[in-house]
Amino acid sequence: MTILFLSPSDDPAEWLPELTRQIPGREIRVWPDAGDLSEIDYALAWRPPAGVLGRLPNLKVIFSLGAGVDGVLSDPDLPDKPLVRMVEPGLTEGMTEYVVLQVLHWHRQAEAYRAQQERREWRQLDQKLARERRVGVLGLGVLGADAARVLKELRFDVAGWSRSPKDLPGVTCFHGAAGLPEFLARTEILVCLLPLTPETAGILNWETLAALPRGACIINAARGGHVDESDLLAELDSGHIAGASLDVFAEEPLAPDHPFWSHPRVLVTPHVAAVTHARTAAGHIAEQIRRFEAGLPLEDLVDRTRGY
Amino acid sequence: MTILFLSPSDDPAEWLPELTRQIPGREIRVWPDAGDLSEIDYALAWRPPAGVLGRLPNLKVIFSLGAGVDGVLSDPDLPDKPLVRMVEPGLTEGMTEYVVLQVLHWHRQAEAYRAQQERREWRQLDQKLARERRVGVLGLGVLGADAARVLKELRFDVAGWSRSPKDLPGVTCFHGAAGLPEFLARTEILVCLLPLTPETAGILNWETLAALPRGACIINAARGGHVDESDLLAELDSGHIAGASLDVFAEEPLAPDHPFWSHPRVLVTPHVAAVTHARTAAGHIAEQIRRFEAGLPLEDLVDRTRGY
Ligand SMILES: NC(=O)c1ccc[n+]([C@@H]2O[C@H](COP(=O)([O-])OP(=O)(O)OC[C@H]3O[C@@H](n4cnc5c(N)ncnc54)[C@H](OP(=O)(O)O)[C@@H]3O)[C@@H](O)[C@H]2O)c1
Ligand SMILES: NC(=O)c1ccc[n+]([C@@H]2O[C@H](COP(=O)([O-])OP(=O)(O)OC[C@H]3O[C@@H](n4cnc5c(N)ncnc54)[C@H](OP(=O)(O)O)[C@@H]3O)[C@@H](O)[C@H]2O)c1
Repeated sequence: MTILFLSPSDDPAEWLPELTRQIPGREIRVWPDAGDLSEIDYALAWRPPAGVLGRLPNLKVIFSLGAGVDGVLSDPDLPDKPLVRMVEPGLTEGMTEYVVLQVLHWHRQAEAYRAQQERREWRQLDQKLARERRVGVLGLGVLGADAARVLKELRFDVAGWSRSPKDLPGVTCFHGAAGLPEFLARTEILVCLLPLTPETAGILNWETLAALPRGACIINAARGGHVDESDLLAELDSGHIAGASLDVFAEEPLAPDHPFWSHPRVLVTPHVAAVTHARTAAGHIAEQIRRFEAGLPLEDLVDRTRGY
Repeated sequence: MTILFLSPSDDPAEWLPELTRQIPGREIRVWPDAGDLSEIDYALAWRPPAGVLGRLPNLKVIFSLGAGVDGVLSDPDLPDKPLVRMVEPGLTEGMTEYVVLQVLHWHRQAEAYRAQQERREWRQLDQKLARERRVGVLGLGVLGADAARVLKELRFDVAGWSRSPKDLPGVTCFHGAAGLPEFLARTEILVCLLPLTPETAGILNWETLAALPRGACIINAARGGHVDESDLLAELDSGHIAGASLDVFAEEPLAPDHPFWSHPRVLVTPHVAAVTHARTAAGHIAEQIRRFEAGLPLEDLVDRTRGY
């Protein structure tokens, strides 16, 4: 049984010791040194070069090294094999940290206080409590549900939006296209944790941004493709959107001349909201290989028709 | 029964409607229009002008409008009457929001990412998970215990330090002078939520700061008097302390030429970590007056010998 590590951006030196330790007795090859392609049984992929997966004739399962599989599904020659996405505690925990930091940043007017500090101005601003602040989470999957839970611990007034109906303790749940307008109308701080699919691409555009109350802030930690960047810039410049924390962009790395870098009300981070941790991630992959080889159903399978 | 509102900095227009509503049938006077001083039964005080409380011959109870009573106890002519401090949910919640924001700010290297944004630099930094980050809370009272609880929800590795032994779920508890060195040695992000007393004044000085691991960050949301400001500046400049979030200062407002304003690794906020909310605070005062007049013991009484 042979495994192919197929990621142009993950460091094999970090992954191989964990994979060898947790999935013993397998040969692990690192693309492009793949040897005889017919020997590959499992591929561990993150934004794989298009066409490679389709050239593995005996491939049994594809594992995504990240939570989002848009970078795998975009391969036009993707073979029709089971695709398992990444679910591991380090990824979820890192994302919740990022989301809570950014929500508190805008909630507590951190930019305004920083501007006052620059002016050496000592002035107390009116401040709501978290219980009076309405936060909305787009996407209530593994990541969205955990973020919503911790935001509730901080006593924010939290709502969420998903495709199918949900029931999360203390969270006002909306779903589907019909639920979106009411969700947006109540949301002062919007967090995007959706997968990128044909249905969710460009979901944050002039129309949805305009449906938020004036002065709303947005946090995008999902994919750049969720945001129409010129619509967001226009809404920021009009003041309708008061601030944005952006971790992901239409083009990454963000181009040096992109207006987001220098926008006074945009916080840019370089796609670091949550990273897959090799140690726990290798455990997830090992467990799924064990299940597969024991004839048990794979978990965290991607539904290709839904796109996530 | 007559109440005197005695605060040079709180707005009577915000307080009087709540006090009248929740403590009906009393006359409420606002200093300096105090009328006949012998008619005053209760005083609601925040940093009261020294000597005033001592001139109220029939005073029965003093209520502090803030959680900290150092500004009341510093009155050399303070009469020997019961002093009730402020405990109310809005104050606790606001403080926990502030502490969690500042802890996440340093934990997630927000200053480093902001500096990168200024340089238009796209670079991912090594990042620990919260579970790998040791946070230490000085003071495990009403505020410290709530902050520690929510930091645990975010999965930080949390320790605390108090005068008497404590047992908080999931929090490593240290106490007394004997417990301080071990507490400091493990603390990467230090949060000060102590009351200001003769024992705690200047507790953050070159000696205790040097006992933190190199690169530690500190958050002071208690009182300026807890920090030796020139020692802190020296430790910041040497790089031993990597960053500081300071909400309180030896002198407030912070003087326009104070080096904290422009220090690249200091975040200044103007004593806004937590404010008393008139609505819930009036409820606390009303309840204690009710208890007092029914002959029941007062709650949240300050112990003058301890100083808090
Ligand atoms: N920036 C980063 O560092 C980073 C790191 C990790 C992940 N991510 C992004 O985060 C995304 C979410 O990850 P996850 O693990 O939470 O995914 P997940 O468990 O699959 O959850 C996806 C959620 O989105 C909802 N959803 C999907 N399509 C929808 C639609 N058309 N309308 C309404 N709701 C829809 C789903 O609804 P149902 O529950 O009804 O199915 C589900 O609640 C990933 O896809 C990835 O792009 C970013
Ligand atoms: N910046 C702001 O906006 C703001 C707002 C509100 C309050 N504050 C400050 O926050 C402080 C704490 O408020 P709180 O309501 O949490 O007070 P609290 O309930 O009285 O708790 C004080 C804590 O400090 C500990 N402590 C006191 N003296 C000590 C000593 N010598 N050594 C070790 N531990 C000691 C106490 O230990 P024991 O439990 O053993 O007694 C207790 O755990 C206030 O005094 C005030 O100065 C600041």
